[in-house]
Amino acid sequence: MNDYVPITAEIRKRIAAIKGMTIIDAPEKLDEFGRDKTPGAFHLPELVCEATEVPQIQALLRLANECRFPVIPRGLGTGLAGGAIPIHGGVVLSLAKMNRILAIEPRNMIAVVEPGVPNLTLKNAVRQYGLCYPPDPASNDTCSIGGNAATNAGGPACVKYGTTRDYVLGLEAVLPSGELVEAGVRTRKGVVGYDLTRLLVGSEGTLGVITKLILRLIPHPADVTTLVALFPKLSPAMETITMILMRGHMPATLEFMDARCLELAGDILPFEGVSQAGAMLLIESDGATEAIRREIEAIRTLCLEGGASDTLVATDAEKRKQMWDVRREISLRIEEAHPLDIQEDIVVPIGRIAEFVECLPEFEAAYGGKIYAFGHSGDGNIHLSVTAGSFDARPQAEQVVRKIIEKVVAMGGTMSGEHGVGIAKQPFLPIELSAESMRLQRAIKLLFDPNLILNPGKLFA
Amino acid sequence: MNDYVPITAEIRKRIAAIKGMTIIDAPEKLDEFGRDKTPGAFHLPELVCEATEVPQIQALLRLANECRFPVIPRGLGTGLAGGAIPIHGGVVLSLAKMNRILAIEPRNMIAVVEPGVPNLTLKNAVRQYGLCYPPDPASNDTCSIGGNAATNAGGPACVKYGTTRDYVLGLEAVLPSGELVEAGVRTRKGVVGYDLTRLLVGSEGTLGVITKLILRLIPHPADVTTLVALFPKLSPAMETITMILMRGHMPATLEFMDARCLELAGDILPFEGVSQAGAMLLIESDGATEAIRREIEAIRTLCLEGGASDTLVATDAEKRKQMWDVRREISLRIEEAHPLDIQEDIVVPIGRIAEFVECLPEFEAAYGGKIYAFGHSGDGNIHLSVTAGSFDARPQAEQVVRKIIEKVVAMGGTMSGEHGVGIAKQPFLPIELSAESMRLQRAIKLLFDPNLILNPGKLFA
Repeated sequence: MNDYVPITAEIRKRIAAIKGMTIIDAPEKLDEFGRDKTPGAFHLPELVCEATEVPQIQALLRLANECRFPVIPRGLGTGLAGGAIPIHGGVVLSLAKMNRILAIEPRNMIAVVEPGVPNLTLKNAVRQYGLCYPPDPASNDTCSIGGNAATNAGGPACVKYGTTRDYVLGLEAVLPSGELVEAGVRTRKGVVGYDLTRLLVGSEGTLGVITKLILRLIPHPADVTTLVALFPKLSPAMETITMILMRGHMPATLEFMDARCLELAGDILPFEGVSQAGAMLLIESDGATEAIRREIEAIRTLCLEGGASDTLVATDAEKRKQMWDVRREISLRIEEAHPLDIQEDIVVPIGRIAEFVECLPEFEAAYGGKIYAFGHSGDGNIHLSVTAGSFDARPQAEQVVRKIIEKVVAMGGTMSGEHGVGIAKQPFLPIELSAESMRLQRAIKLLFDPNLILNPGKLFA
Repeated sequence: MNDYVPITAEIRKRIAAIKGMTIIDAPEKLDEFGRDKTPGAFHLPELVCEATEVPQIQALLRLANECRFPVIPRGLGTGLAGGAIPIHGGVVLSLAKMNRILAIEPRNMIAVVEPGVPNLTLKNAVRQYGLCYPPDPASNDTCSIGGNAATNAGGPACVKYGTTRDYVLGLEAVLPSGELVEAGVRTRKGVVGYDLTRLLVGSEGTLGVITKLILRLIPHPADVTTLVALFPKLSPAMETITMILMRGHMPATLEFMDARCLELAGDILPFEGVSQAGAMLLIESDGATEAIRREIEAIRTLCLEGGASDTLVATDAEKRKQMWDVRREISLRIEEAHPLDIQEDIVVPIGRIAEFVECLPEFEAAYGGKIYAFGHSGDGNIHLSVTAGSFDARPQAEQVVRKIIEKVVAMGGTMSGEHGVGIAKQPFLPIELSAESMRLQRAIKLLFDPNLILNPGKLFA
């Protein structure tokens, strides 16, 4: 399957002849397009193209089928699973310049955008109309809506608002054949035919190149209030999460950090004189001011009843930012402190988060490194940093990652909640998916892309 | 494609030999399984089977492929698009006896169910744990969760909570080949591989027989408050809907009825001395008691500012029921009053509901009947009853339905928001779907079901 042709001078000429297509082949640029944000993943593309219009993409894919070279669609390159890395060489197709917001229809509560629009740009644009586009991956200032759709990206607000999938009403995509297809609707409901929209969302650029998205917007919440709570141990913190949900509260975020993370964050915690906390919760409620103040107060009471040692509520933007900075800073500090940092993105049933995290010391012992856990406790979606003091520990750390994923799947969980499979999770697919499921998914890939020219080697290698 | 073999004595014997499979072939029973709730749709099955276990379904589908007879999966037969009618004869496969709730995991906030569980049975079962399964089709006391998933069913609460698709985390299905496949996850997030779950959800029993569903539950809202408001005309009522949403309110339901509906409902409206109202809104807010009372009061103020002539708020169950009875009673009265009643389920962009409904008199004039409009104004999902005093007016009424659908699609809408295509909407598919989209969807059907034995003639004929 891997006998792709190289991008010859002849092919390059034919690509250059596609009207309006920009070719990038300066060596330092090629290097840049050989990576995304996945630590350690790199492969040099033979060529990079920047498209501005759909027909350019159609022409490129038709040529790829005719000549048999790989085409790798790329948003803004912030992926964490290597989904945009041209592992078989070929042409990286950048969608960064297809970045127009085509329409915002406030009365219909939709936006129509090209794939290269950065997530935060869209959020800010619809905010002016009192509207909100909820999906909020951590990289929202640098990631693209197209990439968000290709990976079905999540974020802290998913616990209340759902993931990208829940906001893509419809889309337009160029299939690997070069054919343009419209899927879904421009309305808030629609059940006509198979759900091609959600087949393409999360397909990691292997079934089509998304060229337009019709996105559902919601009324922007009037106000937001943030609570942080420290607990001496993780399990009462997780028990409190369960209580919060079971009491009918629906906060906009329910984030946690474990003791390992807090070790790194002692100096930036918004509390005085805290020594050894075992877990921190970061909880946000959004909606009408009085309602959320009352809700946060009720949640704070549940935290205290659940054993929280310290709590702090913030209603103003600056204090709220300080609280979130702890969360952001910890990711950076983990990366800085450890030459090896394998980032995982597992999900366990929400009632079993504590049980899972409490197994981590055992996994740490198995390879002699530190494992940090933080993330979306309201969803059960836990980001793990499997770290070591030396890059040489990678093989042992990877063995531990495999063991962790086996544990997660045995607990009824999944290996990825929002980052996707790409190349990073590929070796572990058979742990989670049955042979029947993988066969069916491969058949779907072949139906869409019989010559395997679109993002080959990803997801199902 | 239609040369299916009849169910011979030999085939019947082989089906009867499937361990545990119940065969139903009493003529009056066959008759019953020849219909669903779609007015005027009927085709006699050759045989009905009732399955209780997955291997029975696998054996039946393998036999169907070997012998080439149609198998039509059926939940509880409440469909409104004819999706369960055996239009090519063959075997109706009833899933009514696969009706066990396999698990409710309150801490993980999921339920695992077989497809034959009635929607309301599940709602009641999870309610005991303080949890809620939100999708609420009008037929919720008689429709099955499996059927809900097959059609991606909606209901009034979708404006806030989304449709069935948003609650199916994972599922198990027997493919047309007889192979059992698991899709999706048991957790609240998951992005590993193509979204087979949502490819099967809404596929109307044409891609697989759903045998198990893993459903997301949410905290049960603490309380609910209902508001009805009468408006002299439709357009200010719809303008008010827009205002409500734009002001950041997110009610659980935002239903409307037009003037034609109110003509039939004068005596049951919960107001004294109302003469000629042009529209009624039925709005519900759920959540913490104080928060929703405040929200409903704010919404009531918006209604009055928007021109409402009468408003009424109900907080107790009995008064709330009276309000919903108006909505329910109207459907029945429309059916009783008119020998011909073609039920449509269109969706337009929410900002264009008034514009659309105001065109209906023109369509009425075109065939001399009455068209009633009511439904989910928060979604733009409008149920139309295209009626006539005589069944003979059907051809003219159907011409008008076609014109209505053309108008809806031209406005950026879709022909079905929650009922599905089945056989009822089939003739209109090319109005909404491009040739490329239909070709791709047909190819997916053939990939799953090369012999076209599963629910043939539905969706894509």
